[in-house]
Amino acid sequence: MREITVHLGERSYAIQIVHHDLDRLTQFLHTEYRYSTWFVVTNESIFSLYANELKQLTADKRYHFILIPDGESHKTLDTVDKVYTELIQRNADRNAVIVGLGGGVIGDLAGFVAATYMRGIPLIQVPTTLLAMVDSSVGGKVGVNHTLGKNLIGAFYQPRCVIADTRFLETLPSRELLAGLSEIIKYGLIADVELFEWASEHWEKFLACEPETLEKAVTRSCEIKAVVVERDEMEGSLRMILNFGHTWAHAFESLSDYLLFSHGEAVMMGMMGGTKLSHLRGYLDDSDHGLIQSTLNAIAARMVTPEMKLFFDKITWDEFDHQTRIDKKASGGRVKWVLLNQIGQASVESVPPEMAEEAFNFLKYTIASFE
Amino acid sequence: MREITVHLGERSYAIQIVHHDLDRLTQFLHTEYRYSTWFVVTNESIFSLYANELKQLTADKRYHFILIPDGESHKTLDTVDKVYTELIQRNADRNAVIVGLGGGVIGDLAGFVAATYMRGIPLIQVPTTLLAMVDSSVGGKVGVNHTLGKNLIGAFYQPRCVIADTRFLETLPSRELLAGLSEIIKYGLIADVELFEWASEHWEKFLACEPETLEKAVTRSCEIKAVVVERDEMEGSLRMILNFGHTWAHAFESLSDYLLFSHGEAVMMGMMGGTKLSHLRGYLDDSDHGLIQSTLNAIAARMVTPEMKLFFDKITWDEFDHQTRIDKKASGGRVKWVLLNQIGQASVESVPPEMAEEAFNFLKYTIASFE
Repeated sequence: MREITVHLGERSYAIQIVHHDLDRLTQFLHTEYRYSTWFVVTNESIFSLYANELKQLTADKRYHFILIPDGESHKTLDTVDKVYTELIQRNADRNAVIVGLGGGVIGDLAGFVAATYMRGIPLIQVPTTLLAMVDSSVGGKVGVNHTLGKNLIGAFYQPRCVIADTRFLETLPSRELLAGLSEIIKYGLIADVELFEWASEHWEKFLACEPETLEKAVTRSCEIKAVVVERDEMEGSLRMILNFGHTWAHAFESLSDYLLFSHGEAVMMGMMGGTKLSHLRGYLDDSDHGLIQSTLNAIAARMVTPEMKLFFDKITWDEFDHQTRIDKKASGGRVKWVLLNQIGQASVESVPPEMAEEAFNFLKYTIASFE
Repeated sequence: MREITVHLGERSYAIQIVHHDLDRLTQFLHTEYRYSTWFVVTNESIFSLYANELKQLTADKRYHFILIPDGESHKTLDTVDKVYTELIQRNADRNAVIVGLGGGVIGDLAGFVAATYMRGIPLIQVPTTLLAMVDSSVGGKVGVNHTLGKNLIGAFYQPRCVIADTRFLETLPSRELLAGLSEIIKYGLIADVELFEWASEHWEKFLACEPETLEKAVTRSCEIKAVVVERDEMEGSLRMILNFGHTWAHAFESLSDYLLFSHGEAVMMGMMGGTKLSHLRGYLDDSDHGLIQSTLNAIAARMVTPEMKLFFDKITWDEFDHQTRIDKKASGGRVKWVLLNQIGQASVESVPPEMAEEAFNFLKYTIASFE
């Protein structure tokens, strides 16, 4: 077991990275929330996949399961309202604990419920996807989508504990493992050249679910995220570097009605654009630029589908430009881009639109060139 | 102009108590949020009442008005969702500012929107009722009702500034002035014997809207609330003393389907029960108990309607007892009562059910005895 502490004063908490050890959760609840009732928010597929072990939990009367429907399209206020209803009907009071057992959608939604039920009750995140382990479960961003845009409703609300059991990754489709890899590569690019080099070399082992590789990648990624969150919990500025590739990604996801890309896939392609933009801005020399693009290309080529290729073929600069300007991170219509100053270091700034357009076109052509 | 600071570190803010000086709001926005757009959440009646002055504001393109329907029954996630939609459609970004211009319903709802739109944007409270000035606009409790219970959804989210213009009180019906008086009396009872004695003597001047009386009462009440909130922002324990009479009040409101009592009215009657309970618990001697009850009786007699009398006639201890156990402040089904240790000092504790039942019956009989 490895443990990382996110230092946030009274709101500090531990991230425990374990392997085949779901008992950690039970232990933690018994130690810290002995006199509470525990509401595990999850979905049907996770529940049935782990039904046996979860049944042991349910033997304890203090556990309740709240099943929500699968998928991003259910990450809405409507679903949140249904969870509130279950909590109220089961007499959940302020001592109740919410456990978010699942991927990003469940973590975000369960977190938002915990943040807003009776003005906030304790939250424990148990991420089951690689992406959630290295990204959404750490840092306290919780929320849901609005009909008019993704993640527009939410709060900053820190969990009391994150338990990342890499055993969940064994049943994960390779598409989702690759998606998680996007974020790990991102951490390397923005904050840790060693992690980037190591991930560039070993990424194929991820697909084989080699436990040590996974554990190392998850631990190092969480360490980096923890440091960034400690310095800038509320996303004043520094924390925005975590969004490397994300302005691009949000636009791709939104312009394709969230049907073509998983978040990690969109981020991978967004980082290709962001890397090119950093190069055009004069921050990366040809050699570093080439090195990064060749890693990103190799992974992106495994992700790209005929539909994505068609999407990139059709999308115009104007559409993309408009979409980025209405992004949550934009300010007064000006887009703030996360750029790499070098491998392992990032900054946030505006660039001339022509420069962004050139990076955009580079990305279009690169993806068109994939076999 | 009087100013009180609520000291909460980075989240500190000022409460400005002014008279006929809505320009304060404009000044504050121009100074602090010059480069933002400002969304004033209010309702049709306030908007038409102050249309002329508000029109001067609207001359500035940075102001937008978002009108929500009147009344507690609209303090719901549905209304919140509609406000989100307007914000998104008008391209509100993270620099946008929400101004809650209205009574408690608007302040709570606008505050919840500010707390959850894009994970939190700045909030300014401009309360227009006495109750909102001395209670809901200060302290950061924001939220909405759930179909199954009042204020079950919410957050702690501090405003950047509160501007209380007592001129709004001039158009307030006397029923609402009396409701605000409940909270002022409450501050006296839990924290300031002088305020209680002064309010006991001068409360009839409220109904005449004497500016100095109003200003003094609002200022002193906000001072007390500020100190309590500073010491216990998240309602760990101390802050619960602010709920003197409220466990009772919530039960009355809920058992009457929120149709008979305004919040302040229910609190006034709840304080009669709470005072009796404190007496039974041995905390108030006969003389203090008599003194308090005679003030509360005099005001409550002005509030009580035939429907309320009928309600108190019918309601049974079992119904009341059940309702208090599902209150948000209850813990594991045990009710925590706010009691007066003496006039000007309160504590929170459990009492034997028989004692609460006796206080409940005392209240029933007292109200039955009103002419």
